[in-house]
Amino acid sequence: MSFNTFGHMFRVTTFGESHGVAIGCVVDGCPPLIALTEADIQRDLDRRRPGQSRFTTQRQEADQVKILSGVMVHPQSGLQVTTGAPIALLIENTDQRSKDYSEIKDKFRPGHADFTYEAKYGIRDYRGGGRSSARETATRVAAGAIARKVVPGITVRAALVQMGPHQIDRDNWDWEEVGNNPFFCPDKDKAKFFEDYLDGIRKNGSSIGAVIEVVADGVPAGWGAPIYAKLDTDIAAALMSINAVKGVEIGDGFATAALTGEQNADEMRAGNDGPSFLSNHAGGILGGISTGQPVVARFAVKPTSSILAPRKTVDRDGHDTDILTKGRHDPCVGIRAVSVAEAMVACVLADHLIRHRGQIGG
Amino acid sequence: MSFNTFGHMFRVTTFGESHGVAIGCVVDGCPPLIALTEADIQRDLDRRRPGQSRFTTQRQEADQVKILSGVMVHPQSGLQVTTGAPIALLIENTDQRSKDYSEIKDKFRPGHADFTYEAKYGIRDYRGGGRSSARETATRVAAGAIARKVVPGITVRAALVQMGPHQIDRDNWDWEEVGNNPFFCPDKDKAKFFEDYLDGIRKNGSSIGAVIEVVADGVPAGWGAPIYAKLDTDIAAALMSINAVKGVEIGDGFATAALTGEQNADEMRAGNDGPSFLSNHAGGILGGISTGQPVVARFAVKPTSSILAPRKTVDRDGHDTDILTKGRHDPCVGIRAVSVAEAMVACVLADHLIRHRGQIGG
Amino acid sequence: MSFNTFGHMFRVTTFGESHGVAIGCVVDGCPPLIALTEADIQRDLDRRRPGQSRFTTQRQEADQVKILSGVMVHPQSGLQVTTGAPIALLIENTDQRSKDYSEIKDKFRPGHADFTYEAKYGIRDYRGGGRSSARETATRVAAGAIARKVVPGITVRAALVQMGPHQIDRDNWDWEEVGNNPFFCPDKDKAKFFEDYLDGIRKNGSSIGAVIEVVADGVPAGWGAPIYAKLDTDIAAALMSINAVKGVEIGDGFATAALTGEQNADEMRAGNDGPSFLSNHAGGILGGISTGQPVVARFAVKPTSSILAPRKTVDRDGHDTDILTKGRHDPCVGIRAVSVAEAMVACVLADHLIRHRGQIGG
Amino acid sequence: MSFNTFGHMFRVTTFGESHGVAIGCVVDGCPPLIALTEADIQRDLDRRRPGQSRFTTQRQEADQVKILSGVMVHPQSGLQVTTGAPIALLIENTDQRSKDYSEIKDKFRPGHADFTYEAKYGIRDYRGGGRSSARETATRVAAGAIARKVVPGITVRAALVQMGPHQIDRDNWDWEEVGNNPFFCPDKDKAKFFEDYLDGIRKNGSSIGAVIEVVADGVPAGWGAPIYAKLDTDIAAALMSINAVKGVEIGDGFATAALTGEQNADEMRAGNDGPSFLSNHAGGILGGISTGQPVVARFAVKPTSSILAPRKTVDRDGHDTDILTKGRHDPCVGIRAVSVAEAMVACVLADHLIRHRGQIGG
Repeated sequence: MSFNTFGHMFRVTTFGESHGVAIGCVVDGCPPLIALTEADIQRDLDRRRPGQSRFTTQRQEADQVKILSGVMVHPQSGLQVTTGAPIALLIENTDQRSKDYSEIKDKFRPGHADFTYEAKYGIRDYRGGGRSSARETATRVAAGAIARKVVPGITVRAALVQMGPHQIDRDNWDWEEVGNNPFFCPDKDKAKFFEDYLDGIRKNGSSIGAVIEVVADGVPAGWGAPIYAKLDTDIAAALMSINAVKGVEIGDGFATAALTGEQNADEMRAGNDGPSFLSNHAGGILGGISTGQPVVARFAVKPTSSILAPRKTVDRDGHDTDILTKGRHDPCVGIRAVSVAEAMVACVLADHLIRHRGQIGG
Repeated sequence: MSFNTFGHMFRVTTFGESHGVAIGCVVDGCPPLIALTEADIQRDLDRRRPGQSRFTTQRQEADQVKILSGVMVHPQSGLQVTTGAPIALLIENTDQRSKDYSEIKDKFRPGHADFTYEAKYGIRDYRGGGRSSARETATRVAAGAIARKVVPGITVRAALVQMGPHQIDRDNWDWEEVGNNPFFCPDKDKAKFFEDYLDGIRKNGSSIGAVIEVVADGVPAGWGAPIYAKLDTDIAAALMSINAVKGVEIGDGFATAALTGEQNADEMRAGNDGPSFLSNHAGGILGGISTGQPVVARFAVKPTSSILAPRKTVDRDGHDTDILTKGRHDPCVGIRAVSVAEAMVACVLADHLIRHRGQIGG
Repeated sequence: MSFNTFGHMFRVTTFGESHGVAIGCVVDGCPPLIALTEADIQRDLDRRRPGQSRFTTQRQEADQVKILSGVMVHPQSGLQVTTGAPIALLIENTDQRSKDYSEIKDKFRPGHADFTYEAKYGIRDYRGGGRSSARETATRVAAGAIARKVVPGITVRAALVQMGPHQIDRDNWDWEEVGNNPFFCPDKDKAKFFEDYLDGIRKNGSSIGAVIEVVADGVPAGWGAPIYAKLDTDIAAALMSINAVKGVEIGDGFATAALTGEQNADEMRAGNDGPSFLSNHAGGILGGISTGQPVVARFAVKPTSSILAPRKTVDRDGHDTDILTKGRHDPCVGIRAVSVAEAMVACVLADHLIRHRGQIGG
Repeated sequence: MSFNTFGHMFRVTTFGESHGVAIGCVVDGCPPLIALTEADIQRDLDRRRPGQSRFTTQRQEADQVKILSGVMVHPQSGLQVTTGAPIALLIENTDQRSKDYSEIKDKFRPGHADFTYEAKYGIRDYRGGGRSSARETATRVAAGAIARKVVPGITVRAALVQMGPHQIDRDNWDWEEVGNNPFFCPDKDKAKFFEDYLDGIRKNGSSIGAVIEVVADGVPAGWGAPIYAKLDTDIAAALMSINAVKGVEIGDGFATAALTGEQNADEMRAGNDGPSFLSNHAGGILGGISTGQPVVARFAVKPTSSILAPRKTVDRDGHDTDILTKGRHDPCVGIRAVSVAEAMVACVLADHLIRHRGQIGG
């Protein structure tokens, strides 16, 4: 059972609420002797950090991570390395502004988890969404930075490929561009377009959905396992667990429903370095096990539920009312999901490396 | 860790290969005193059973289930009931025809798990796909029949809503029709169309993909949990673990990427029986917890990889070759996924009922 | 959660009741390409099999094991090997004689699980103890036979070292003798003594307790892990899970309570093959991790609760009554625990090998 | 897999090293709406805190606990309560004195985990034992304080019943006395004796073992489950996981080996409040399930390995050497195990309450 833990051998347990003292996580099962400093983790956190453009929430969080355990300076090399003990990471909350949320204390915001938390627990932390806030994802990004070091030789990258009804042009895909715009968009032209488009959404107090694509290069063939430890199953669960995600697909995904067997087959040819594939409809996974091709997943993020337009709802006393959410919010929460998705997939891969090495050896 | 187990509190461990002695499963954690006979399970198995129309594999399997443990006749009521002990179910394989597969022993079929199993394990059971065969899903259907009895008052139904590029007309949706055609299609007119359409595919030795929708009615508000025990996360993993599935979505799914916050919000109104929602874009789940509305999921099934058209591949010795798969196969493997999906969702719900009751009580 | 599963990476799920159709288990996570036949498993089962001397229950069970899945003949070597898929094992029950138990259907036998099963489940399988019967341990022995093959180079042996108040003379310890007497006793003289001693107990319709010692030779240094995956923690849990076990100790165990730090320290000296220890008070485990010395555990088995002397009890209707248990029972159930303990420790070691290899590599 | 997590539904993940920045834990699965303040936890921590008498390590730690997440002030009652979210607890290390340990950096202390950590991880945190230090147990005590609130009506108490070869007189047992002496000893006279006895040990720079008994009153009949979720199995694992523990027994434990079936049976009689038992040899557990009697467990703690007498050992370079441990240590580490054992048993009971309620309801 793992309400707040993901992974089996590389296990990440997260804690903390949007407006509590701190958020953090414990990474358990990390192999020893891996060089690791706070700077390694901070780098990834800085990418996800809110308040860096007008397109993400204006909440100002330094998101400074502290490593509380699990590392020490290696007596011989002088490098700080992991010891095999659990690595606890702490990020203090500094800009909570609880007052922003006082108005919504007794009303259920449509699209939010307000009603369901109340239905389940009989109580809900209304301050900024509490545990259901996207703030929790900062701890995933921190854990993911460690996971990346567990799987050297593997590159996990994500990019925004659709915002609202507007898809990127795949012929323009340039990974370099992802860092050059606030949308993590690989299509330079479309990124320009998104700037105006999202400004319009933002100024209207509205919000919009998005689709993100994650690609892991360098995954060797043979990771994953039937039947319920499938690599794609775990990736699907990992991505679906991100706030506001409503769909996940691997490789050609939903498009395969319209394909024939001839169209969908990834044919193979022999080569000097072993067999290779002539296409990658499968997204690098067959029968739940990696093929050696890039692992490709995509997921849909619904529009932020907090909007300025008043919506019909009920209050805790069971009366009809309206609500509009002021606070500080992301007009397109999909943007921040980009780095979260990379982290989740990196964690899944670290987990599968350890599982595979355990069962098979080598 | 659970290579062949799914669920946490309602746990199903499956075993068996397509052409071995038998397949089966062990259902652990089933509450006691639930009336259960082999007939209860057989009913669901019969729906999934191959060879019932020309549109599924012509393999003839009686799929007779035997309960090996975990039940006894109640001394007072005289009914056979569960005892709380693990329930082992066995289905003997009777129509294996291993010879059909001798030709493909040393070749990797494109789109199949042949290459990846070999890459992982250094060996693969080439007889009918071995463990990667859709035959394993019969054991899931059997487990699902038990799960249904654990969650009385909840109805889990699935239907085929797209085959190839052809979607049903949702205005024609009639659950009654699902049992009246070999496609489990709720749209009578489209079912007629599919008959000709799939005959064409079948006669060409080709195959086609599909989309299936699962709906669970009667799920109370409050099941599921943040952050990694989300109801939608578990449903996504459960459906993605079904053979040939390449995408999963909840509620409006990928369509939400194109929506604004105003369009996507499910507004609420007060009522005599508590708050109700004016729409269900969320598919009955917010923040990973059920809202009390119908839980709606959809998934894409790729076209069967076994087709009669020759495809380029390599053999185990690393030489280029071609392959065409004779055997007995489903032209649209999505058809048989309908009952499997119902079973998986029923199992997830049984699991979440037990988890919820444990943590919250009541 | 694992009501009926033990192990994390080498996972064994058992099922079946004393008087049901069959008992069995599913072994999941077994590495591929390990030679395995039914004969390998039958050998261990035959050692545990009841009815082989007048000192164990006269129930006659062939205990013939069938492998249902997870193996195939290797195409090159011609040997039957594991494939990495779950291995299901089945043992049919053939000599159930349910009528023996009709009398105790409505009474709680003191020392048995009758009352507690009824308290928990509201029903209990009174036929031979149902799920709580020692019969379940046959499936553990079967799983243990597979575990032994996963950890080649390691020898796991157990022996009875105390019966009633009578301890063996450790100077007489001879592993060869363990197979020469019906008690699995390593002390030839004491085995002779036990023959008369236990005959007396048996003829009185009484029963007696025992202490068993398990020794694993060849375990390399470094297996196990702090804090809750300790090797000794897992061994303690594994042995305590055996029917009728009431105590477990590692190395000098309870005797260490009376020792000083000087007496208890296992001093070390350098050697050509690395450091070695001058004693083994620790039983081969320090800080939860193996030292490279023999792993030594001992456990106490209470006397069989089924005895001929009438005991005070109550019936299901809440009335005072007496009970005496006729059936066919072991006068010293500790005897059959010897092979079960070996199996459990072998399974724990297989599990830890896989975990260690996963986290550390190599 | 859970290297640093214990429990299934009430899950505790601990982190931190003896001489790191901080230690702490995350308690996941705690039911909502339970009143909880830092003071509730501090009370238990203060009992365990070192430096309170000359019989425990002179390390001075305030052991001030901070709750980082998982609680909020209830909007109606004004009480701080749990929300169902993970509860993170942090205890900063304030008195580390790393210099004390510089001498032992390259030598393996006999009886310590130095050699085995090095063998496993290729590195070890030599500062105060790092992760293997008894300091980690402070976090268990903190978690246990929460567990106690999850099982109201149950009292979990422990006491030291043997030090060295000296056992208490059970006729003198008085729970009130446990708080009146630095040994948590329930026998007033023996506590006096221990004062002189342990002073002698301490002044010699030696150490001594102990036996602790834990009793849980108020556990209802029916908690626990066959076969591998037995209540006694989990208690055995929980106690064996405590530092320096070498043996665990339930009820009469090892003494049952010398008993006959007649002697060991706990007879039953009818009563107004249901059946009751005439004795409790079983320690409140039959077949892995609670009987409704007090749950009784005992465990042996070996003498502290850090002593002033020089012992033979080797250094990391493989040379023979001697070592004597100066630092600040407990002459009888069993004393501090008393509160840890209470915490562990409380956690096991909280876990089983949730599991039971989940599977059975009510």
